[in-house]
Amino acid sequence: MSSIEVQQFTYHHGDVELAGYMAQPSRYPRAGILIVPTIAGPTKLMYDRARWLASLGYSAMVCDLYGAGPLQDIREARRLADALRSDAEYYRERFRCALEELRRRSRLANNRIGAIGYCMGGEVVLEMARSGEDIALVVSFHGLLATPLPAKRGVIKSRILVCHGRADPFVPPKQMRAFLEEMDFAGADCHVHIYSGVLHGFTDISNNASSVEPVRYNASADRQSKAAMLSMFDEVFEVKKTPDQY
Amino acid sequence: MSSIEVQQFTYHHGDVELAGYMAQPSRYPRAGILIVPTIAGPTKLMYDRARWLASLGYSAMVCDLYGAGPLQDIREARRLADALRSDAEYYRERFRCALEELRRRSRLANNRIGAIGYCMGGEVVLEMARSGEDIALVVSFHGLLATPLPAKRGVIKSRILVCHGRADPFVPPKQMRAFLEEMDFAGADCHVHIYSGVLHGFTDISNNASSVEPVRYNASADRQSKAAMLSMFDEVFEVKKTPDQY
Repeated sequence: MSSIEVQQFTYHHGDVELAGYMAQPSRYPRAGILIVPTIAGPTKLMYDRARWLASLGYSAMVCDLYGAGPLQDIREARRLADALRSDAEYYRERFRCALEELRRRSRLANNRIGAIGYCMGGEVVLEMARSGEDIALVVSFHGLLATPLPAKRGVIKSRILVCHGRADPFVPPKQMRAFLEEMDFAGADCHVHIYSGVLHGFTDISNNASSVEPVRYNASADRQSKAAMLSMFDEVFEVKKTPDQY
Repeated sequence: MSSIEVQQFTYHHGDVELAGYMAQPSRYPRAGILIVPTIAGPTKLMYDRARWLASLGYSAMVCDLYGAGPLQDIREARRLADALRSDAEYYRERFRCALEELRRRSRLANNRIGAIGYCMGGEVVLEMARSGEDIALVVSFHGLLATPLPAKRGVIKSRILVCHGRADPFVPPKQMRAFLEEMDFAGADCHVHIYSGVLHGFTDISNNASSVEPVRYNASADRQSKAAMLSMFDEVFEVKKTPDQY
């Protein structure tokens, strides 16, 4: 594994101070990747994934959701999430600030930026795609697919990959159908991967300890969704052969 | 690229003589892969894919559909396909014979066998999974998802990967929904990849010359579906660590 560098820092959304975590490769990065955590905020898994992506040559930044520091429990997370989501435009802006911070720190051109998210973070990266943000690719892992502001035709610039457990009770088949129809209408270049029998939270083995939430790690879905993400990265961020395109 | 060996041969389904094509790696194969062509029968693309898989360490056999030799046109192919499909059990048996030939020639254990298919060939490999055939993995590329004999609960032994163009007129959203529900009912371990805006026949660049069929090559869907297949092969056929499992 090549050497990587890790930084912790603060950034801002208006008056809200947010905590950032960035892992960078020692060489010039292939692309910058924003990592948006689940409703519970950044966890060990998110930092692990950032360092893993840095080891593969990407500058990866884990962003903050609420600026509230460590949370008491899932109820506090839900309360903060509800407040943040209550204004759809403000919600989107929170993560535009994170993207700006990533761009500034990684010193990469706009079109070499991706964003990935888990659960609520999946919702976030899809919201960014819907808003027409200049991101080459967004990837949602067991993300929520509904939106108060469906994509208008022709607005989405990002490639999209959605990795979804078919048995996820937070994203029932009806929500998936509406999402696919929204993407059709928008004319988006969207790939959706559906895993039969797989529940919410399939990327996180610590979910198996939960007795209250309908979440469960699935080794195959985790492995295949990671492989799909890297294969899309290879396609979207590959170095062009002609000098004027790089 | 490592050296490969290619053979052409005949095999039989009852009185019907069928033409086989096999590409094998010089070293002991990772697994045996049956390749089932589109309704038009084996084409250059099928043989190319067999040699490509052999170069990656797999024994790959392209099977025959009708035993009729080179076909006049798509109308003759449709007529032969209709006749073959008219008896669902006989249809399944046609490809059981091909699997037996692959197993015999590749000298691999049953559980190191996969089957991949394109268009009608995708339908074929799904029929084999539905019949409970002992195949580790089946992969369908723009395959037809309807069946006269839906899978019974618990019968499917194979992992399944379905790569589907959302705009494929032969597989409308209603057929996809029914398929996902069939897989739920059967309790199958099934991954479905849906590509927005992608038509039928997205793996074959020669389809772009067709003015009569709603088919179109899609470079990204072709690339990502191939990568997904190889990633599933890596998972399903990986050499086990404990000697008794290999």
